[in-house]
Amino acid sequence: MRGEFTLIAELFRPLAGDAPGTYSLRNDGARVVLAPGEESVVTVDAMVEGVHYLAGDPPESVARKLLRVNLSDLAAMGAAPRGYLLAACFGPDIDDAWLEGFVAGLAEEQRTYGVTLLGGDTTRTPGPTSLSLTAFGAVPAGRALERATLAPGDLLYVSGTIGDAALGLKALQGELPGLDGEASAFLADRYRLPQPRTVLGPALLGLASGCLDISDGLVADAAHLAEESRLDLEIEASAVPLSPAARAALAERPDLLTSVLTGGDDYELLFGAAASRVAEVDALSARLGLPLTRVGRVADAQPGTDAGAVHVVDGNGRPLPLESRGWTHF
Amino acid sequence: MRGEFTLIAELFRPLAGDAPGTYSLRNDGARVVLAPGEESVVTVDAMVEGVHYLAGDPPESVARKLLRVNLSDLAAMGAAPRGYLLAACFGPDIDDAWLEGFVAGLAEEQRTYGVTLLGGDTTRTPGPTSLSLTAFGAVPAGRALERATLAPGDLLYVSGTIGDAALGLKALQGELPGLDGEASAFLADRYRLPQPRTVLGPALLGLASGCLDISDGLVADAAHLAEESRLDLEIEASAVPLSPAARAALAERPDLLTSVLTGGDDYELLFGAAASRVAEVDALSARLGLPLTRVGRVADAQPGTDAGAVHVVDGNGRPLPLESRGWTHF
Repeated sequence: MRGEFTLIAELFRPLAGDAPGTYSLRNDGARVVLAPGEESVVTVDAMVEGVHYLAGDPPESVARKLLRVNLSDLAAMGAAPRGYLLAACFGPDIDDAWLEGFVAGLAEEQRTYGVTLLGGDTTRTPGPTSLSLTAFGAVPAGRALERATLAPGDLLYVSGTIGDAALGLKALQGELPGLDGEASAFLADRYRLPQPRTVLGPALLGLASGCLDISDGLVADAAHLAEESRLDLEIEASAVPLSPAARAALAERPDLLTSVLTGGDDYELLFGAAASRVAEVDALSARLGLPLTRVGRVADAQPGTDAGAVHVVDGNGRPLPLESRGWTHF
Repeated sequence: MRGEFTLIAELFRPLAGDAPGTYSLRNDGARVVLAPGEESVVTVDAMVEGVHYLAGDPPESVARKLLRVNLSDLAAMGAAPRGYLLAACFGPDIDDAWLEGFVAGLAEEQRTYGVTLLGGDTTRTPGPTSLSLTAFGAVPAGRALERATLAPGDLLYVSGTIGDAALGLKALQGELPGLDGEASAFLADRYRLPQPRTVLGPALLGLASGCLDISDGLVADAAHLAEESRLDLEIEASAVPLSPAARAALAERPDLLTSVLTGGDDYELLFGAAASRVAEVDALSARLGLPLTRVGRVADAQPGTDAGAVHVVDGNGRPLPLESRGWTHF
């Protein structure tokens, strides 16, 4: 494999190009260049071979997923993506072909999302490859979306469709043998490659009353919003938007509704909006060509509870029991 | 070991406190809060158990080194340290006691350097622990120190003393048995714990004509400055400042001069300054109580060479042969 300096010069430097502040990766660090009145939003996510992806996964898709999960976090704060730092600890199996694929994946995402590599660190590890990416976005100063700012009476919305990734994993594991090939492929793709809502997020500034991205599962992430706002959230299971493929999967296996509601990796946005702003949310959905679906509402926390709770109800308003509330990282 | 959310709440949240923009780690990301006219400088470094530190090293010192190597990169750009993101992939051996020590080390460094944890990501890995830290600093917009900006005739300076860390490693490896215990301990400490020049760096804004921190070794890092500036650097070996312990070590083993000049982990600053500004450099040295020693000069690149080169000369101006030019990461 290439030495470190050759690796940086040949593979990574083209990802920085001559973008302002990157010094073409020739400096100790980078400057984050912003327009007047903007401030920087930052987030970091790590992915480990064998934990968050498989050793045999195409390096292009590993790179794309690594960048996209971070861009989703920026979107949840209403930040437009700008750049990223990469810290890569490459394991013994990583060869030039893998690195070239990984960099090609990053290059493709840079074109899609308008971001630039600002800098990084590469090293070797005797263990599985571990990758961490720090993403930088820009918001008008002081206006980033938060989690703790919902108000009683707000309506709860989600973008896109929910549960595709969780069902895609089931399909890949052979648990949905009756599903047709096209539907299986759609769901598997939603599992493999998040679609961060990088256009929606900044468009929600000043409209959403609170926001996060759904990575741990709809119910678990709703619980985060509820806890931070110290309010209760009610989610109507029948209102949760499903893709045609997810509907087909649930027709075969109705018991997988729990996976839809609690499975991770949706990377859609869950946000609140004041009831007076329904028309604006609908107009935004039409403008972006992206479903924004009302799935519930925000209420005062039950007396005697410390922080907020999430109540999932069926079509008749009755509590829906869920086996699992979501996914944690340990 | 604690679950992820408990880990964040109990151990990491106190490191963020209620600092502006951190949302007490309750959001998807963080805002980087700057004063008017400032911009952000960012850098990332990764450390892997068994590669950059040993599994048995105290977790406090692992945390301190991880933060300090990044603060050194900020100092090299003249940035005052402000905050950091941590991405931690914890291996199977990591238990609560290790985590508590690691966090205690971070807390101590936060007090020393005035930085705050902004956010992060924690996950598990079946392999060795790998840690990556992204550090944020602030500089007046457009004034960050660079590498490629030296001019012919500039004088070359280093801060502090050079070679202690490389000799400390030799001492730890038993290669300096004749050295007294105090000198050995001093050198070993310089190897274990970098002293990032976080006060000097910002003080060099507008004074230094180019700067980097010496992590790969004096000669290798001087070569980086030379290449980026496309100028030649001449370093007088006899002018390189040595600690009393390093002098004692070289008295025992004169052949280790090569280690002094090419060994890594000094984390001192190497910078250029116009010859007209010698008095200002001397005054700064006196004000900070930190040696700033002239070790050479900048010259036009030799005709016919692509980029700059480093010439190390002895006390008589004769070229000094060096076995190794420095350390690379692969």
